[in-house]
Amino acid sequence: MEGDPITKLCTPAMVVDVDTVKRNAQRMIDRCQDLGVQLRPHMKTHKTLECGDIMTGGTRRCVVVSTLAEASFYADHGFDDILYAYPLPFDKLEHCAALSERLSLFQVLLDHPKALELLSKRPLRAGRLWHVWLKLDCGNGRAGVLHSEPEALLLAQAIAKTEGVELTGVYAHCGNTYPCKGVEKIQAVAQETTTLTLQFMEKLRAVGINCKSSIGSTPSCSHPIKDMGQLSEVHPGNYVFYDVQQSLIGSCRMEDVAVRVLTRVTGHCPHRNQLLVDCGWAALSQDGAGKLPSGYAVIEGHPGLKLLSMTQEHGRVEPITGELDYSQYPLGSLLTLVPYHSCATAMMHSVYHVHSGGRLVGKWFPTRGW
Amino acid sequence: MEGDPITKLCTPAMVVDVDTVKRNAQRMIDRCQDLGVQLRPHMKTHKTLECGDIMTGGTRRCVVVSTLAEASFYADHGFDDILYAYPLPFDKLEHCAALSERLSLFQVLLDHPKALELLSKRPLRAGRLWHVWLKLDCGNGRAGVLHSEPEALLLAQAIAKTEGVELTGVYAHCGNTYPCKGVEKIQAVAQETTTLTLQFMEKLRAVGINCKSSIGSTPSCSHPIKDMGQLSEVHPGNYVFYDVQQSLIGSCRMEDVAVRVLTRVTGHCPHRNQLLVDCGWAALSQDGAGKLPSGYAVIEGHPGLKLLSMTQEHGRVEPITGELDYSQYPLGSLLTLVPYHSCATAMMHSVYHVHSGGRLVGKWFPTRGW
Repeated sequence: MEGDPITKLCTPAMVVDVDTVKRNAQRMIDRCQDLGVQLRPHMKTHKTLECGDIMTGGTRRCVVVSTLAEASFYADHGFDDILYAYPLPFDKLEHCAALSERLSLFQVLLDHPKALELLSKRPLRAGRLWHVWLKLDCGNGRAGVLHSEPEALLLAQAIAKTEGVELTGVYAHCGNTYPCKGVEKIQAVAQETTTLTLQFMEKLRAVGINCKSSIGSTPSCSHPIKDMGQLSEVHPGNYVFYDVQQSLIGSCRMEDVAVRVLTRVTGHCPHRNQLLVDCGWAALSQDGAGKLPSGYAVIEGHPGLKLLSMTQEHGRVEPITGELDYSQYPLGSLLTLVPYHSCATAMMHSVYHVHSGGRLVGKWFPTRGW
Repeated sequence: MEGDPITKLCTPAMVVDVDTVKRNAQRMIDRCQDLGVQLRPHMKTHKTLECGDIMTGGTRRCVVVSTLAEASFYADHGFDDILYAYPLPFDKLEHCAALSERLSLFQVLLDHPKALELLSKRPLRAGRLWHVWLKLDCGNGRAGVLHSEPEALLLAQAIAKTEGVELTGVYAHCGNTYPCKGVEKIQAVAQETTTLTLQFMEKLRAVGINCKSSIGSTPSCSHPIKDMGQLSEVHPGNYVFYDVQQSLIGSCRMEDVAVRVLTRVTGHCPHRNQLLVDCGWAALSQDGAGKLPSGYAVIEGHPGLKLLSMTQEHGRVEPITGELDYSQYPLGSLLTLVPYHSCATAMMHSVYHVHSGGRLVGKWFPTRGW
């Protein structure tokens, strides 16, 4: 199929514009260089080697992952300096130990003294340390010890003191940029997260602890504030693909979105003023809950259409207003969906069809599971 | 791992109770035998060989699939008499022809004269016929030619007359049972769909056409009405797993649900009165949109808990009322989620862990893609 136009693909199919991916990746590399902060790109959106290569500029070093399946996949293919940025899972301690003993630098994350206790009871083989990031919650409201609680500093000190364990850094995710609309609001959250993290680093230094700091999220790292240059690292991920959600937040323009789902018209339903397409939630995911004016996705080049609802393998499309002109959408004709959330859409596909300028150049195969 | 308790699995993990699967399958077989109607089970919920074997009583014959990937997967493993119950895809005609020429009985479905035209222009090799079901919309509002439109009869006649093509049957899906609550309402929809289909069969006989008829949906086939015995076939699918949604519709009891997602507590957040678990939408799907009183799933054995929200790999759990007693939910402890929609949850997993009485007996690997 290489060299063929993407329009030859059977549908539904997820396509990735490699030129847009490279441009998004390079912009983030440049942005971090300008800021003077180390970029540690997150692999969770795509979970492929090829995209990992592009995001690391070919170094295969300094990445972050969300599952141990990703960690193993990347480790098996020559990646190193991997941060598994998920609260240390009590059922996967041995797997974490094996990666710590095998790689030059495998790093884990925790937010509770019980997790530290587990690590201290499972020393690594001679000379090896557990490299541990403390997860701090600076207002995101998911994992992490709350920045304002005395426990945060106590846990950092306990990590630093524990034999066989090293406090590598302090890690905060600013997922609370996602409800933002516009650069100003994104930057207000980025500023708050950065300030709280830097204040915490001050407290650490005051008790004689020096370690790295990292914050991340695609919105904040797409529009970084100056103070982020005082951090050691940032760890965005979605930016390599972007999506409709990110464009609405203000992280990117629609032309920066690198992924699409191709779908074909499979039915005309004039009695309901609807079309059917062969993209259901099995190919798009249900992310976004259909709340866009255009429903579950943006239908590229057809601003008057809405992806109203989906079942497993069917999508119902109708005009936002007025009557459908079916002659414009013959059975078998192609429509192009821009996903609301590319992480969720990518998860539905076991192969991504990669193109440059609309011509297929290869396939990427993501890893799956946990 | 065989023989181990499921509690030894790393999480998140989807587990399938094979005894419940077998009981659900046998009940549907018995129900159809009592009715005097042929059961053609749908494979789209699980997409595995093992479950296909159980649903067909080991015959590997007379199944229905939603994708060509499923059709090929089952054909490659000795299944035959396969109905690909999706509006004939214009981009996959050659693939359909290859399956038609290879299997004893591969059947396609259509709802538009253009699709018939495609088939007539692509005759199969000597002696082979395209076996075609006409998709009829009896109020479901998705694919199919509307039962009340004159075009329906005209299209059936055109299929019957076209050289190289056989009108195998008339196929209606009663997905409009899904908004029902309770057996009475399910049966009203089942009655309407059955009556409209049988009336259409009458019209066909009046013009000299005899062919099969089939309706389906898990709710209607779990509580069949007497007239369904006059149909040739029924084609439910989800019943082999069932789920919370089906229990709310009234198709099954909660104890008939065969699938669970196992998850572990990964965080305590007393400042938010929440727990974190390692099941996000990557392991559960977003189906149901969190609208259950217990959120995105039912947390088995903990009726006071709610799966409030999810991100890719995290779930936020909180009490429906009152304060969480964290001592009941230590870090690393297991919670068991009953999925809202098992088709959507199964789609997130590349392996199902199969157990009998809580002891692992094997793994099933579903097919994916289109």
